[in-house]
Amino acid sequence: MRIALGQFNALVGDLAGNAERMRGIYTEALRSDVDLLVFPELAVCGYPPEDLLLKKHFLEDNRIAVEKLAADCPDKTIIVGFAESCQGSNYNSAAVLQAGRISEIYRKGLLPNYGVFDERRYFHPGNEPVVINVGGIRIAITICADIWNIEWLDNFLRNAGQIQMVLNISASPFYMGKIRKREEAVSRCAEKFNCVVSYCNLVGGQDEIVFDGRSMFADSTGRLVCQAKAFDEDLLIAEIIPAGDRVVQVKPAQPTADQPAGSVDEVYQALVLGTRDYARKNGFRKTLLGLSGGIDSSVVAAIAVAALGPENVVGITMPSKFNSPETISDAEKLAKNLGIEFLTVPIEPVLGQFDRALKQVPGWDSKGIAYENLQARIRGSILMSLSNSTGSLVLTTGNKSETAVGYTTLYGDTAGGFAVIKDVPKTVVYKLAEHLNKINSREIIPADVISRPPSAELKPDQKDSDFLPDYDLLDKILKGYVEEDKSAQQLVESALPQNVVHNVIRMVDRNEYKRRQSPPGVKITPKAFGRDRRLPITNRYSSSNDARH
Amino acid sequence: MRIALGQFNALVGDLAGNAERMRGIYTEALRSDVDLLVFPELAVCGYPPEDLLLKKHFLEDNRIAVEKLAADCPDKTIIVGFAESCQGSNYNSAAVLQAGRISEIYRKGLLPNYGVFDERRYFHPGNEPVVINVGGIRIAITICADIWNIEWLDNFLRNAGQIQMVLNISASPFYMGKIRKREEAVSRCAEKFNCVVSYCNLVGGQDEIVFDGRSMFADSTGRLVCQAKAFDEDLLIAEIIPAGDRVVQVKPAQPTADQPAGSVDEVYQALVLGTRDYARKNGFRKTLLGLSGGIDSSVVAAIAVAALGPENVVGITMPSKFNSPETISDAEKLAKNLGIEFLTVPIEPVLGQFDRALKQVPGWDSKGIAYENLQARIRGSILMSLSNSTGSLVLTTGNKSETAVGYTTLYGDTAGGFAVIKDVPKTVVYKLAEHLNKINSREIIPADVISRPPSAELKPDQKDSDFLPDYDLLDKILKGYVEEDKSAQQLVESALPQNVVHNVIRMVDRNEYKRRQSPPGVKITPKAFGRDRRLPITNRYSSSNDARH
Repeated sequence: MRIALGQFNALVGDLAGNAERMRGIYTEALRSDVDLLVFPELAVCGYPPEDLLLKKHFLEDNRIAVEKLAADCPDKTIIVGFAESCQGSNYNSAAVLQAGRISEIYRKGLLPNYGVFDERRYFHPGNEPVVINVGGIRIAITICADIWNIEWLDNFLRNAGQIQMVLNISASPFYMGKIRKREEAVSRCAEKFNCVVSYCNLVGGQDEIVFDGRSMFADSTGRLVCQAKAFDEDLLIAEIIPAGDRVVQVKPAQPTADQPAGSVDEVYQALVLGTRDYARKNGFRKTLLGLSGGIDSSVVAAIAVAALGPENVVGITMPSKFNSPETISDAEKLAKNLGIEFLTVPIEPVLGQFDRALKQVPGWDSKGIAYENLQARIRGSILMSLSNSTGSLVLTTGNKSETAVGYTTLYGDTAGGFAVIKDVPKTVVYKLAEHLNKINSREIIPADVISRPPSAELKPDQKDSDFLPDYDLLDKILKGYVEEDKSAQQLVESALPQNVVHNVIRMVDRNEYKRRQSPPGVKITPKAFGRDRRLPITNRYSSSNDARH
Repeated sequence: MRIALGQFNALVGDLAGNAERMRGIYTEALRSDVDLLVFPELAVCGYPPEDLLLKKHFLEDNRIAVEKLAADCPDKTIIVGFAESCQGSNYNSAAVLQAGRISEIYRKGLLPNYGVFDERRYFHPGNEPVVINVGGIRIAITICADIWNIEWLDNFLRNAGQIQMVLNISASPFYMGKIRKREEAVSRCAEKFNCVVSYCNLVGGQDEIVFDGRSMFADSTGRLVCQAKAFDEDLLIAEIIPAGDRVVQVKPAQPTADQPAGSVDEVYQALVLGTRDYARKNGFRKTLLGLSGGIDSSVVAAIAVAALGPENVVGITMPSKFNSPETISDAEKLAKNLGIEFLTVPIEPVLGQFDRALKQVPGWDSKGIAYENLQARIRGSILMSLSNSTGSLVLTTGNKSETAVGYTTLYGDTAGGFAVIKDVPKTVVYKLAEHLNKINSREIIPADVISRPPSAELKPDQKDSDFLPDYDLLDKILKGYVEEDKSAQQLVESALPQNVVHNVIRMVDRNEYKRRQSPPGVKITPKAFGRDRRLPITNRYSSSNDARH
């Protein structure tokens, strides 16, 4: 029995386009003479459709699209994820398409409702296993989370009879290192049921999340025998050969695709795909961003170029009297290295005029934090003006470390449509800069940009280190506090300096309002700002409270 | 048996402050010689604590706070909502405090996971009824949603024995007309179980939602015998008198409090409380806002004055060459009517300088939409600069109608900390203006402001009606599409004009990215933008699709 995993890039809500793409993959699969073609979770409508699922007509359209797909692809068995509405209840379902119609429907049993997931907002859990027979192989259909709780699955399939393959269709979002957990879940499942596991994942970027693909087969010993491409579409084919009563062999039709070379490369590819898909799926061809000569904007520009091509990226430097000749020239050097258009719009005249206007108001201070923020807001307004006049997408350049502590200007450097590195800690931004130079085998990010101490350049001789702890230390604290929900006490007990821990936690807590108004960006850590982390703005709880007893 | 419902304004995360307030109410209740004092759902930590519930130390602190409250208030029975962690599972619980300790714990059975609610993200459902005896009355404890599904509750309490009172502690958010549904739920419960229902609701604003209080008692026939204040704290006391085996009488100790005079007054009070609490709970004393002389900013200013006092509201007019002398003078008249500080900062010089700077960039057009947006962004920057230099909260003035169709400038008129009327349709804004003049028995909002056709005044002779349909029609379409999730087809079938319906739906769909970056504001309709409505930005689905078959 030949099985093909159709790992493709679905677009949320594009029922017709997704079906069209699946028909194309079906034609390709026919040429490879497969018996069974599998598509990811909610492939018909893309994942996650969120509150589109509350629209009755959307659910009806899902059904129509699946039925049409069945009619268009009658010659092989297809399994495809769709949003099912049945007798007033909705399900996250897998349709089995055979002979031009839906022959069976499996309904997802375990509905994740944590992190970025809200599945219980939309779906009822299914409670019936579905086992189909294709080419003599008995296949239990599962969806995503169903195989992550192996005790639950074991119990669920208790009376399902003999199974030679667990098939899993997924929409499993990326974060650094997630693939190891996914491989473990697949292996564990294969071992538990002593059967082949075929795992078909979605690929592509959708607002805050990126699906990394890497569909795979495991044999009945739990060994991974073949893996599809990461961060790209792929059609992964294998021959499933029964050998005796229970034993089944998997013979992949191709070798495992090249996989990312380590976690920095993995992050880099996620950012490139996330940026490309956000732009493309929202109808943007061109992007623009401010280039300060600093490392964040340099890395974002390089990612944008990798995502969309140098002809679709415009860099703008907007110097004030506080920008050094070195950073201005580094911005230009970077633009040259990347081969992108480079514009200069000095902000000094506008800043002066604003200052004069604001001096009419009692209490205005041309040296304070408001004056610093004003510079960032003028830059934000220039970028947005050019965005409005050219239809380009503005990319913001804030990293996770500064986003966490609020070392940003709302409507200033946070102004834009997509925040490429908002989930990338500053320490990883440095690694990305080095990675970019390495994979391009030449200097893309100028060496000075990497070695110069970071500065916002909003007042004379400003350095990030005047205000923030060293980024190595800051990122350690943020990992513990933001990603792992640890308390100040736990962090201090893990040998982090008490004063710094308390200051950082206070800054994180106080700046929720800024993050609430910031654009989406690619999730690359276990917990990103956005849907993944939902803190109230109005919140008097202090995790930095020393003596709570 | 005397029971008191302690309807109070809890602050999310303020465990110590909430406990302090409850101890104060306990002292008050002692003076009234009550036997049983009841506090709302999650009263200890405020509602909704959101992802604070993922912090282990937060849950531990909840338990500590409840135990301390029990120890501090040993003389009467208290029922209080808190977030409970027990053996690795979390519950939305009600603690029964007696003789200085927690004597029983009831765990909420029905966990809402729709609209603004995410309770299954945090809690496990309980599955055990708790019935306590206070002063000879057998009381079944329930929490919020538990009484809204009466069949579920009937089944849940099947073996709980004879019940003389269903007690419900709630955190039930406000929207226009919600009180009727709540009263129906309470009445239905009383009838079903032929017993008294005591309903204790939270009051206060929390980010996007306002709890309106209006705690109540129903007798065993389902009749509402007494209701507490709306949008304010209250202590509602009644005598519960057993009379025969099943019959129980309720004798309220006070008359029903004054209730809002209709739905516009209700909305007005919700906006005032929501604005006051957002400012107060986030540590702001002063607010500022741009006054255009239009109806939206006029109504927001009046609400801010009602919420915080005229001494804490500053109005700023920022005229350009496109503002008419009439609107400028109306802004000033409004400020005078309200008795607030009024500043003028003309934007013309800054606009001219921006224009000169942007002319250096090919393609810049000093007449197009980008130029219009730039004016709004200059105003946003001025407001934020003054906010940064004075520590005032900027109130934004966009209504729901324009927020829905994206007739706003991102980082321009959307720039600020709290969007007071973001959920108020334009047609209701007009009603609020008239209401404000009526309740103040004089002209607060100038008559011209109400009668003048609305305009953004960003280019010569601009009118909202050049771009948008008539607001009566627009609001009808938005109600159907946004609040009721109807399709274009359904709206057209309800006699709304096809072209307009399709245009409006397209505008709503395309502007999700702007709403995602807008500040929170008070929910007053069944579905507000924000946590309540979660649409993807990247979304190719068209609800305006005519011929989907």
